[in-house]
Amino acid sequence: MRNVTTENVTDVVIDALGKHGEVTPRNREILTALIRHLHDFAREVKLQHGEFLYGCDFLARAGQLSDDKRQEFILLGDILGFEVLVDMLTHPADGTASESTVLGPFYRENPPVLPKGASIVQKHFDNEETIYFEGYVRDKDGNSLKDVIVDVWEDAPNGLYENHDPDQPDYNLRGRLKTDENGHYAFNAVRPVAYPIPDDHTAGELIRAMGHHPMRPSHMHFMIQKDGYRRLISQVFDSRDEYLDNDSVFAVKESLIGQYKPAPKEMGVDLHIEFDFVLTEDETARLAAE
Amino acid sequence: MRNVTTENVTDVVIDALGKHGEVTPRNREILTALIRHLHDFAREVKLQHGEFLYGCDFLARAGQLSDDKRQEFILLGDILGFEVLVDMLTHPADGTASESTVLGPFYRENPPVLPKGASIVQKHFDNEETIYFEGYVRDKDGNSLKDVIVDVWEDAPNGLYENHDPDQPDYNLRGRLKTDENGHYAFNAVRPVAYPIPDDHTAGELIRAMGHHPMRPSHMHFMIQKDGYRRLISQVFDSRDEYLDNDSVFAVKESLIGQYKPAPKEMGVDLHIEFDFVLTEDETARLAAE
Repeated sequence: MRNVTTENVTDVVIDALGKHGEVTPRNREILTALIRHLHDFAREVKLQHGEFLYGCDFLARAGQLSDDKRQEFILLGDILGFEVLVDMLTHPADGTASESTVLGPFYRENPPVLPKGASIVQKHFDNEETIYFEGYVRDKDGNSLKDVIVDVWEDAPNGLYENHDPDQPDYNLRGRLKTDENGHYAFNAVRPVAYPIPDDHTAGELIRAMGHHPMRPSHMHFMIQKDGYRRLISQVFDSRDEYLDNDSVFAVKESLIGQYKPAPKEMGVDLHIEFDFVLTEDETARLAAE
Repeated sequence: MRNVTTENVTDVVIDALGKHGEVTPRNREILTALIRHLHDFAREVKLQHGEFLYGCDFLARAGQLSDDKRQEFILLGDILGFEVLVDMLTHPADGTASESTVLGPFYRENPPVLPKGASIVQKHFDNEETIYFEGYVRDKDGNSLKDVIVDVWEDAPNGLYENHDPDQPDYNLRGRLKTDENGHYAFNAVRPVAYPIPDDHTAGELIRAMGHHPMRPSHMHFMIQKDGYRRLISQVFDSRDEYLDNDSVFAVKESLIGQYKPAPKEMGVDLHIEFDFVLTEDETARLAAE
């Protein structure tokens, strides 16, 4: 492999796979495609060494921003439409089960465990609209599923998730609920608002380089799990939102749009929304949450 | 852009470029190719969401390792044969000027400024072989170039660069020299040794996933600059090295192999090597070093 050229270097690197150790079949498949596409990308745009060094610095800065409260690379993957693609490849829509969409960078493990109907609100904002969010979780045959674990998380009325806002209590607007005997879940919350994804630092640098905007349409996040069923990661969007056709992370699905309606007085909240989910059976699926 | 599919999402993201801000022509070119290749990669291997999350975590850890002494992304780019490709795209060989090769992750700015013939050695090792390294820098017509800035850096006889070895003095085995009136440079050093690139942490994870080894053939690094000439970043390899055909970063060029010979007694060192460089004129090149 002396004297590699711009033409043969890709084959030289791919041929080196496994020459000095074991390579799993999946690693070989992924690395071969990764090397080929990275190299083709560089050749197509005649990437210059200064641009490569800028890219290395950009990625290092993105890593340095990442900690248990911020995962910059998920955010960058979202901005490039990469996570929504990977999600569709992982969870192909089958026309029956609920559609999934991106996890996003804001999920936190071990949210507060709450009884059905409890509130996830730990701090109030002047502009908040209170909501009662409820629905059923069923299998594809329409059978109610009990004891399904339902994680929810959302941004506050100021457009910030609690882990990006030092003025919110820890785990504000996050909760873990269970469906009851009838497959019913419910919780009190506030109407999520449209918000800009973090556009400081590297995410903002990428958004500006793309000539794009950072806004996401209002949505409530869900992660829904039960042993024997495929875990569903999804979002419920607000039918009135102006960014539904213009999501900065390309994650909106028509089937995931819900409607907030004025609540009956006895609910004691401003708005009411009902949204049901259908899970796909998967014998091998084990609950990650417990 | 509601209801993106695995098929249309790439065009949707590319169509969004510049919809909400300016995009420079070069950014559009680079981002279009980057998005297309990233998405094609994911589709080809049916990348799974867990693999995406592993990748995000891997990149975050690589960033967290990076500081002013370690640039993990250059290292990862080297291991994938990406930097050597980018270098060849940036500095196409023309058959006359000296060939370039990868910068690598170990360069440090502002090395000690030394007079011609000085030693870059600040610490001695039992197994070291002392060397006198000299040569001429010329233009393509064979004219000597004076006052050329020559940065050199190398690993110690223990296989470590000083910035990865807490037991070496700061800037050990680094120096900045100038050619004299006759275009001649010279310095005292130790023979560089073959060494493993850092194979702890993420670089090691990648090397092991590739089934590759981390060894690089012995080499002396050069960065050679003069106003009006294209900056040359290169390495001089050791003709006796066992890894010349097997470099973990694919960077060896036949024209960059030099020979260490027994030194005449009056030199006071073990070995002597002569290596000349030829620079390409470039009216627009300004010296970065001063």
